[in-house]
Amino acid sequence: MYNKITPEILVELKNITGDEFVFCDEESINLHSSDETEDLKFPPEVIVKPSSAEEISKIFKIANKYNIPVTPRGGGTGLSGGALAVCGGICLSMVRFNKIINIDTKNFQATVQPGVITQTFQEETEKLGLFYPPDPASRGSSHLGGNLAECSGGPRAVKYGVTKDYVLGLEAVLPTGEIINTGGKVLKNVTGYNLTQLIIGSEGTLAVITKINFRLIPLPKCKKVILASFNALEDATDAVAKIFQKGITPSAIEFMEKAAVKAAEERLGKKFPNSQAEAQLFIEVDGNYPELLDKDIEMIAEAVEEFKVIDMVLAEDEQKVQDVWSLRRGIGEAVKSISAYKEEDTVVPRANMTKLIRGVKDISAKYGITTICYGHSGDGNIHVNILKDKLDDKSWHLNLDKAIREIFELTVSLDGMISGEHGIGYTQKSYLPIALSDSELELMRRIKKTFDPNNILNPQKIF
Amino acid sequence: MYNKITPEILVELKNITGDEFVFCDEESINLHSSDETEDLKFPPEVIVKPSSAEEISKIFKIANKYNIPVTPRGGGTGLSGGALAVCGGICLSMVRFNKIINIDTKNFQATVQPGVITQTFQEETEKLGLFYPPDPASRGSSHLGGNLAECSGGPRAVKYGVTKDYVLGLEAVLPTGEIINTGGKVLKNVTGYNLTQLIIGSEGTLAVITKINFRLIPLPKCKKVILASFNALEDATDAVAKIFQKGITPSAIEFMEKAAVKAAEERLGKKFPNSQAEAQLFIEVDGNYPELLDKDIEMIAEAVEEFKVIDMVLAEDEQKVQDVWSLRRGIGEAVKSISAYKEEDTVVPRANMTKLIRGVKDISAKYGITTICYGHSGDGNIHVNILKDKLDDKSWHLNLDKAIREIFELTVSLDGMISGEHGIGYTQKSYLPIALSDSELELMRRIKKTFDPNNILNPQKIF
Repeated sequence: MYNKITPEILVELKNITGDEFVFCDEESINLHSSDETEDLKFPPEVIVKPSSAEEISKIFKIANKYNIPVTPRGGGTGLSGGALAVCGGICLSMVRFNKIINIDTKNFQATVQPGVITQTFQEETEKLGLFYPPDPASRGSSHLGGNLAECSGGPRAVKYGVTKDYVLGLEAVLPTGEIINTGGKVLKNVTGYNLTQLIIGSEGTLAVITKINFRLIPLPKCKKVILASFNALEDATDAVAKIFQKGITPSAIEFMEKAAVKAAEERLGKKFPNSQAEAQLFIEVDGNYPELLDKDIEMIAEAVEEFKVIDMVLAEDEQKVQDVWSLRRGIGEAVKSISAYKEEDTVVPRANMTKLIRGVKDISAKYGITTICYGHSGDGNIHVNILKDKLDDKSWHLNLDKAIREIFELTVSLDGMISGEHGIGYTQKSYLPIALSDSELELMRRIKKTFDPNNILNPQKIF
Repeated sequence: MYNKITPEILVELKNITGDEFVFCDEESINLHSSDETEDLKFPPEVIVKPSSAEEISKIFKIANKYNIPVTPRGGGTGLSGGALAVCGGICLSMVRFNKIINIDTKNFQATVQPGVITQTFQEETEKLGLFYPPDPASRGSSHLGGNLAECSGGPRAVKYGVTKDYVLGLEAVLPTGEIINTGGKVLKNVTGYNLTQLIIGSEGTLAVITKINFRLIPLPKCKKVILASFNALEDATDAVAKIFQKGITPSAIEFMEKAAVKAAEERLGKKFPNSQAEAQLFIEVDGNYPELLDKDIEMIAEAVEEFKVIDMVLAEDEQKVQDVWSLRRGIGEAVKSISAYKEEDTVVPRANMTKLIRGVKDISAKYGITTICYGHSGDGNIHVNILKDKLDDKSWHLNLDKAIREIFELTVSLDGMISGEHGIGYTQKSYLPIALSDSELELMRRIKKTFDPNNILNPQKIF
């Protein structure tokens, strides 16, 4: 369907970026063949590292002329294969877009290139008393551009919203080569269609983002964490809805089942408090007044006590808060290190979480698979890790697709969606019709065609 | 370009909704000829009042078959002519979509039809201890559907965001007749493109919304208001940026120049405190703990005192807070009752507001026109009302367009946009190229064509 990269095309690419930013060596190809999605490998034919929107525009012109697919790549931390060069062609690495152009302390805004590491950006804003809340687990290496592409969330989304809620405007290159600006630097804007939000979450299929205008908020001055452990999954998930009904909005409210906690303990060589409990909630509150946080914690404790809670542990000082966070952050990698796995990113209205998790366990039992659930319970966003564990290859391959399909059907029946923050990308696209109708998919396909008539940008993703 | 409604088409429309919901009488036509945009009048040929998505789908099929334009209409409170039947044809009145289907106190969500009055919805949610913050001045008669179409804001946007920030999902009818669902009932979602946010703010040109899933937040338990008056416009606008830099995010921070306050006093027959001051700031803080609001008020006072403040008046009890709000809410209508007018909806980063208002005054002086500025200064969203006042017809017509153009050029040069919350609609479309490039406009036109190949839905708007 697509053409292969020829020596002639390589010369044209080198003319755009300079020889030193075009790579075809085995090591580079290998490094850019996978992201953090399972064990998938798709080698691109060439890696190009442009440094400006204009260079990307020229690369797109070549891609259209020769019918070559282009796969944009940020930090390579995606979990649905968005950065995989499934059709070969050009891997468009955004590593050179690594500048924080401006942090505007008067307007609480920042202008940033998409190749900046999420954590770097967070730290730079915090130095100025400002806060960029989106906080994906991969923040130490993920790019902001990738966060936008997948509309990343993370634990703080429950109070502060997800990546899209902090983006005011973009500079982006369309696959047809035009450089456009969307939105702006303003907090309110109905000046034409909201292309900003159409491009965010489009998983690098509609345009390549080359500049981001973020809004920021004042950095809360203090936080406290309470860990509550339960003897039954249901008690933990039901407690979540109760906390909100008390009028409290925690800055994070994370759910972990026992197996997730155990995996993290083992991998990190550290102990979680009450790690023998069936389920734990990790609840953080933040604000500017410590005495208020105490009131919040009190009300949370009240809410939690209505369920069968085993123990509550308070982390008040900075170091203890850090410690429990590092355990929580370690879960994802720990669980995945157990065996081959598939990670699903289910999301339901939070009061339906109990039914979701119970249903997942029933489906697991039916197919003899192991599932470990954890995630952002305040948003109803539960990561379901399906592990091969001790299952033989045949049963794994036979049952995996059926089990996922049933989990997603259950999710949708509970008013949920099949991806909260990881995206559909390459790995989930066969399940998309469970969540979307033919008309909806067809409209999305037509929008894709409007942006990318030759389908050269990140093909084989989403649809 | 379009065909006229024939008796045959009328019969087909009546077959869809029943005779009693199709109106061609003079009074109905007259009532649906204008919204709140200046003195513009565009009579539709027929008004149809459907009650379901299926009926709207059938109406669209007729419109496509006979090439008839369809203009959706909510409360008719728009300020950019979005609901004006500029090309005649069918006025699609959404008044029968007036049900609050469900307010879900467990998940803090609501499912609502688009013809519900904004204020009714707010009041119903508040009874349950929940909060729907978007708060346009027209909330007593505007429809939620219209609020989505124009992405309405209002004073609370500075802390709580605008309409788009509360919409999780939609049911909508495409102009080609398909009924689609976008988004869902979940707080995080990257399951396909964000059609929800593409449709919101598209001013009724891409689809007709038939159901809305909102997220809600806990209702803050108390609020306080402080009115600060200044001898110079600049002192008021500069004070705004300073308040934020203290780490305070007020729930409203409204700016009014003297002429706006005077107009409201006259029209309402009530007195504003310190109404002789050149400019006033109306600053509200809200929260759950009164003692904290006192701390906030203290810090606001500190920030404001760095500028030449004449006086500060605190409104602490519910009644006083209501009183100042009713004065503030009265300004829009009061200013417009002075004479013929044009209202512009400029928005800039808030630290650039002083330059914007100063520039507007210079442009006013240059063209001999009267401008009155007021609005949501926390967002940098300043409504510039241009009044004909005592100007003769010739000078008014001669200078108006030039003045608006210069105001918008200035706005864009200050990193601003030409509409914050009123939309482009019919009246601002000739100015859109000041804010958007040819490529950007062309992309939006292509998206419009993707949704509406025959251009039957709300033609002559935005572009």
